[in-house]
Amino acid sequence: MNIQSRFAKIRGFTDQIVAPLEAEDFIIQSTSDVSPAKWHLAHTTWFFERFVLIPHASNYQEFNPQFDHLFNSYYETIGKPFARPNRGLLSRPTIKEVVKYRKYVEENILNMLNQADQELIKKIEPIIEIGMNHEQQHQELLLTDIKYNFSINPLKPAYFNDSSHDDSYTSDMEWIHLEEGLVEIGHDGKGFAFDNESPRHKVWLNAYSIASRTVTNKEFIAFIEDGGYEKVQYWLSDGWSTLKKEGWEAPLYWEKKDGAWFYFTLSGMKEVNVNEPVTHISYYEADAYARWAGKRLPTEAEWEHAFSNEEIEGNFAESGNYHPVVKTDSNYNAFGNVWEWTMSPYSPYPGNKPLEGALGEYNAKFMANQMVLKGGSCVTPASHIRLTYRNFFQPEKQWQFSGFRLAEDKK
Amino acid sequence: MNIQSRFAKIRGFTDQIVAPLEAEDFIIQSTSDVSPAKWHLAHTTWFFERFVLIPHASNYQEFNPQFDHLFNSYYETIGKPFARPNRGLLSRPTIKEVVKYRKYVEENILNMLNQADQELIKKIEPIIEIGMNHEQQHQELLLTDIKYNFSINPLKPAYFNDSSHDDSYTSDMEWIHLEEGLVEIGHDGKGFAFDNESPRHKVWLNAYSIASRTVTNKEFIAFIEDGGYEKVQYWLSDGWSTLKKEGWEAPLYWEKKDGAWFYFTLSGMKEVNVNEPVTHISYYEADAYARWAGKRLPTEAEWEHAFSNEEIEGNFAESGNYHPVVKTDSNYNAFGNVWEWTMSPYSPYPGNKPLEGALGEYNAKFMANQMVLKGGSCVTPASHIRLTYRNFFQPEKQWQFSGFRLAEDKK
Amino acid sequence: MNIQSRFAKIRGFTDQIVAPLEAEDFIIQSTSDVSPAKWHLAHTTWFFERFVLIPHASNYQEFNPQFDHLFNSYYETIGKPFARPNRGLLSRPTIKEVVKYRKYVEENILNMLNQADQELIKKIEPIIEIGMNHEQQHQELLLTDIKYNFSINPLKPAYFNDSSHDDSYTSDMEWIHLEEGLVEIGHDGKGFAFDNESPRHKVWLNAYSIASRTVTNKEFIAFIEDGGYEKVQYWLSDGWSTLKKEGWEAPLYWEKKDGAWFYFTLSGMKEVNVNEPVTHISYYEADAYARWAGKRLPTEAEWEHAFSNEEIEGNFAESGNYHPVVKTDSNYNAFGNVWEWTMSPYSPYPGNKPLEGALGEYNAKFMANQMVLKGGSCVTPASHIRLTYRNFFQPEKQWQFSGFRLAEDKK
Amino acid sequence: MNIQSRFAKIRGFTDQIVAPLEAEDFIIQSTSDVSPAKWHLAHTTWFFERFVLIPHASNYQEFNPQFDHLFNSYYETIGKPFARPNRGLLSRPTIKEVVKYRKYVEENILNMLNQADQELIKKIEPIIEIGMNHEQQHQELLLTDIKYNFSINPLKPAYFNDSSHDDSYTSDMEWIHLEEGLVEIGHDGKGFAFDNESPRHKVWLNAYSIASRTVTNKEFIAFIEDGGYEKVQYWLSDGWSTLKKEGWEAPLYWEKKDGAWFYFTLSGMKEVNVNEPVTHISYYEADAYARWAGKRLPTEAEWEHAFSNEEIEGNFAESGNYHPVVKTDSNYNAFGNVWEWTMSPYSPYPGNKPLEGALGEYNAKFMANQMVLKGGSCVTPASHIRLTYRNFFQPEKQWQFSGFRLAEDKK
Repeated sequence: MNIQSRFAKIRGFTDQIVAPLEAEDFIIQSTSDVSPAKWHLAHTTWFFERFVLIPHASNYQEFNPQFDHLFNSYYETIGKPFARPNRGLLSRPTIKEVVKYRKYVEENILNMLNQADQELIKKIEPIIEIGMNHEQQHQELLLTDIKYNFSINPLKPAYFNDSSHDDSYTSDMEWIHLEEGLVEIGHDGKGFAFDNESPRHKVWLNAYSIASRTVTNKEFIAFIEDGGYEKVQYWLSDGWSTLKKEGWEAPLYWEKKDGAWFYFTLSGMKEVNVNEPVTHISYYEADAYARWAGKRLPTEAEWEHAFSNEEIEGNFAESGNYHPVVKTDSNYNAFGNVWEWTMSPYSPYPGNKPLEGALGEYNAKFMANQMVLKGGSCVTPASHIRLTYRNFFQPEKQWQFSGFRLAEDKK
Repeated sequence: MNIQSRFAKIRGFTDQIVAPLEAEDFIIQSTSDVSPAKWHLAHTTWFFERFVLIPHASNYQEFNPQFDHLFNSYYETIGKPFARPNRGLLSRPTIKEVVKYRKYVEENILNMLNQADQELIKKIEPIIEIGMNHEQQHQELLLTDIKYNFSINPLKPAYFNDSSHDDSYTSDMEWIHLEEGLVEIGHDGKGFAFDNESPRHKVWLNAYSIASRTVTNKEFIAFIEDGGYEKVQYWLSDGWSTLKKEGWEAPLYWEKKDGAWFYFTLSGMKEVNVNEPVTHISYYEADAYARWAGKRLPTEAEWEHAFSNEEIEGNFAESGNYHPVVKTDSNYNAFGNVWEWTMSPYSPYPGNKPLEGALGEYNAKFMANQMVLKGGSCVTPASHIRLTYRNFFQPEKQWQFSGFRLAEDKK
Repeated sequence: MNIQSRFAKIRGFTDQIVAPLEAEDFIIQSTSDVSPAKWHLAHTTWFFERFVLIPHASNYQEFNPQFDHLFNSYYETIGKPFARPNRGLLSRPTIKEVVKYRKYVEENILNMLNQADQELIKKIEPIIEIGMNHEQQHQELLLTDIKYNFSINPLKPAYFNDSSHDDSYTSDMEWIHLEEGLVEIGHDGKGFAFDNESPRHKVWLNAYSIASRTVTNKEFIAFIEDGGYEKVQYWLSDGWSTLKKEGWEAPLYWEKKDGAWFYFTLSGMKEVNVNEPVTHISYYEADAYARWAGKRLPTEAEWEHAFSNEEIEGNFAESGNYHPVVKTDSNYNAFGNVWEWTMSPYSPYPGNKPLEGALGEYNAKFMANQMVLKGGSCVTPASHIRLTYRNFFQPEKQWQFSGFRLAEDKK
Repeated sequence: MNIQSRFAKIRGFTDQIVAPLEAEDFIIQSTSDVSPAKWHLAHTTWFFERFVLIPHASNYQEFNPQFDHLFNSYYETIGKPFARPNRGLLSRPTIKEVVKYRKYVEENILNMLNQADQELIKKIEPIIEIGMNHEQQHQELLLTDIKYNFSINPLKPAYFNDSSHDDSYTSDMEWIHLEEGLVEIGHDGKGFAFDNESPRHKVWLNAYSIASRTVTNKEFIAFIEDGGYEKVQYWLSDGWSTLKKEGWEAPLYWEKKDGAWFYFTLSGMKEVNVNEPVTHISYYEADAYARWAGKRLPTEAEWEHAFSNEEIEGNFAESGNYHPVVKTDSNYNAFGNVWEWTMSPYSPYPGNKPLEGALGEYNAKFMANQMVLKGGSCVTPASHIRLTYRNFFQPEKQWQFSGFRLAEDKK
């Protein structure tokens, strides 16, 4: 598929995601972690305008110069972004106006690609590639943010009606054993990757074992019922403070009614399916579970090495499930379903060089106080994920589709 | 006009106020003092449902039982209201649904009035009367809240386009002199009044003088330019703390650009008209100005006594100006244009009895830490205001159309 | 007694109050409302240095020029006070150094008084008079602040060991009836009074009844046990918010253990004496009790008028009880034992003129968001209180020895 | 030296550190990061009482059972510690009482050691060893906390008067080059080490260069003067937020007066010595400097490998300088003077096992959101530091004597 078609397809998938929303749904921002759907639509568009059209298209007229301030996310080197926690306070531009903005920028990008000479193509293709990957990241955020925004409404609205799945059986958890040795991880430079995945580099690994699947709701309920959320000895100090401050007693979105667990999903409140992978778990909860189980989480190198031969297949955004499912074609479900917390803090790889200019802010400046997650989730577009992909979030975050699998040292 | 017609007319004026809004505009809540327009529409409707239909209409089916929680404002004795600062986080019910809710309740109220016998009428008319006055208060809040919500948007959207006024000239401020004596203030029981306006009672007043008009923008600019916002000696202690915390340097909505003062209005950013009454002034600012001027604010008794023979005429919401104007038919502009801060804390009148039941929460429970304002403003419906009307706000609030006039002791 | 003797006596009483303290006790500040004992000692001394010695003593050398910043409380017109909540963070100057400072300033004041001519005496005597009254106010604060500072220590240290009292019996509460009429309240200019007590002025009072004594612990426990702290209908809106935020379930310092009520006193934890006047009550609690009892609080004018012929006798600081007692020589206990909340917000009297210069900040700038209390308490020096004395605190404050008596309209 | 002598010597050094303090100085806590000196004295004593005497001494009588709550720091598995930010609110026990507590516990420990049989010795020696190392950590904290507590006092008191040093010259910064390879780091089990230093394990290192000394004040001033604190491109995202929130413009304790830089030291305010190693630097500042300089910080493995043959010599607490000095006997000053930030987040070593029981809380539960520092500082006792020692703090902390040296990838 040429870049024009891929561009159009990716932009189209964003439209598809927001199709079920009412005008009012585009505006709300229920906590500072999430953004209004309108903002995602405008910001992903701004990215192409700011980094492709303004610097590289001749005679380009900005759709509205004030949008540069309103829809910049965090690129501090190119102006003052509008304060993130206030994104939900803006009723204007209306969603109709934002859709016009999207169309305007899309047409300009496609025209530019169609008319560009080779020299220009060489300049702009890598940026458009980043822009498309950027939009895919926001497709995932759109879904996780819609979920959070809807969840706090006492009416518990459903974003869509899902279809049913065969969920009667979970495979047993088995241990995959790997020998010690000097391995290589990181991106080898073939095809697109973010700057934080490079360079490919050597890492020494002691012998270890890693679980054949992620922890399930049934297993996690055993932890809850054993008093896991009340026993300080399983928790990191910062995790325990967070638990106390937030009043955590179960994963995000879970509620107990008359002895049964329910959770809020994008198709409304449902009884918890115990066979599914547990999700909406913070790092602190994953780590506490692992201590309780006498195990630990894998490092990112262990995870990447263990699944380096797996196919990229599983339950992704394109499936339209927008929720983990029990049965997939994949053996280990390393990809899709839930992002997997690793025990690796998010740091630069040895020899890593961030992109130059404002796009260098994309990844590098977040390399403190965050943990690496691997594998993608049920709301990640399939074409977006890779073995070497490094997602990262603060250890207290729960609103992503995040779960975990166990590991242990070889005895 | 019979009560049915008045009910329909008042409800219709609410519809007229929100006609210029886009769906997105109904949702936002830019600070905890203001509410989303949608919430005002639903809450005023809930009031009639909760206090008239549910207790008094036979076989009434609630439109949606969950609305009782969502749209209760602060009547704690009848359930747990939805947290006020979170009103802007709800995209559902959509505005379309809320309009349906309004129609449903309106039809039920009108049917009930048409079919009620005298006994029922005697029960429900006083509550409907309160409900209509309540709706008028929310008409004023709708306009002040829309103004605030729009003001924080960098696009500075206009709610409407106003027409121009003759504003070339302000009358001189003169002093009205009143003798000492035992006077009466408060409502005498004829016609509707809120419970906080009763009973009519005696107050001793020393001789005093009161200004013939409120302070203008020109006069207030003199205070600013004399360093009024930088000189601690003019300010109450709590006022000075607020000024420091909020960074006050001028009235709310004012900005200085290239040496000239501009303000945000419901028709967008404009240059300040110096002849107009100053507005969006907190009590602290009014009090500081008065000290700077060597005067003081009037008490509520002084104000009410001084203007007890004035007609209720002036610049009200029905004029559609939604902004103070310089010239009106009224001599002293005691009514309309801007609410006038008095130096009287909001306390019960001697012998006052709040209404029984939940409606007793309407006024009485706010009798601490608030100051009385008199006279109504350019966004108050004319039929809503009275000589004895007691408005009240915390002394730091600025988002109402509030101004002030000076007074002094007779020398 | 001449002014020199009175000055020495008042300063000596401060020394007596702090005699039981250890060096460490002088430093702590357990909440921003209270100040460290060291700060009180230094600040009352600074007052004489700043307002008497520096402007009026020839060739006066400041003890330490930095103290002007450290020990200014809130006189913003004469410099930047050290931030109040940080007073407990300063270990230096040590208490030994502060005692030296006190002696130095005392000697200078006494020398000045001994050598001054009539002209100078006329200038400084009124300021020294204020300074002595100011020091007496801080004697009261010393005791209330020591109590609060000690109370939060899990060791519950005792400041002193009190002696026992006859507390077996409380007189019945009776109603004193007063007729309507035009009365006068406020200070007539004879003898010392603060600027906020003037001028004497007329007030119209409707007929009313006022209780013969303040509410007792036994009576207040009945309110608690009737769910007074759980029933929103008795509470002002701001009061209910405060109750929720602070988790109020009883007066300050009260704890329930095995079904019995205990309170922290300056002589340690004790079982509550049910016959005593209730104290450490906020205005919100007093007001809620009154609504529960179907009564109200008196206005300050009603209180002052009702007790205008009472002797100033009762349980004051000089008694050394530092706690309310059941039996005193006074009929109505209008003076001493507990400060009595009135329902009057703290506002200027008609025609009131604050002192000129920085001392005008003493009272006037606090005239917002506070309520008037009358009569003095068990930690008020007897020579400090007057019929016309107006104390004032924010309605949520509990750490003063504050109680209340009931009133009602004549039926 | 036998354990009794070492115990007595270490406890004695604590006494020596607090000898210059006044009683008031022991109480204050100027921010929640620091603790009062009194608390350090009591807590280090509590450690021996709680982990040695109570479980292992027969018939031991606790000095005061309430101290178990007051002086527990964070061992949540053995009771509820007194809230850390409130440690400065306790005037009792007085410092005299705490000194008695220290003597009481010391005598009991020494008696126990003198009388114990081999079996008991085997049990308690490892805990006493940890207790002594724990006390040494608090000796360092005592000095850094006294510094911070004194610094916020406008009187800028001096803890001691230091002597002068030859500081006329800094050696040039040179690069030490190291080849790629599989190296080993971590403790090999010989002699005392904390549980977080084990096990010794393999790490692959690419070729790298590391600076021969840490960055100096002169070099850091160049960063400041080049706008380092104003240019967002050098800062991690969390670092920039912290800078904005805290208003950072220079290292902690620095002030500019009339064009010259001054800093607060334990001997009072001084002009900055430009030849000294820069200190009181957060990780964010160290990282920003490195980006500005086109370099990076070393990893902990790189640092440990580079200095694995250095002697443990330098400027430590025993020198009594309590401040970095320019000239020491050490070539690279890897040890002493300033703790050196590494770019390594604080994570468990592969195969690491925390201690069992409450002492397992010592290190393991802090393994999130902190960075590793190496080498010890001018307030670290010499006998406390090791090559493998892993200190750790949150990346925003500045109040330790923390600096940094640069590294880079071999080109």
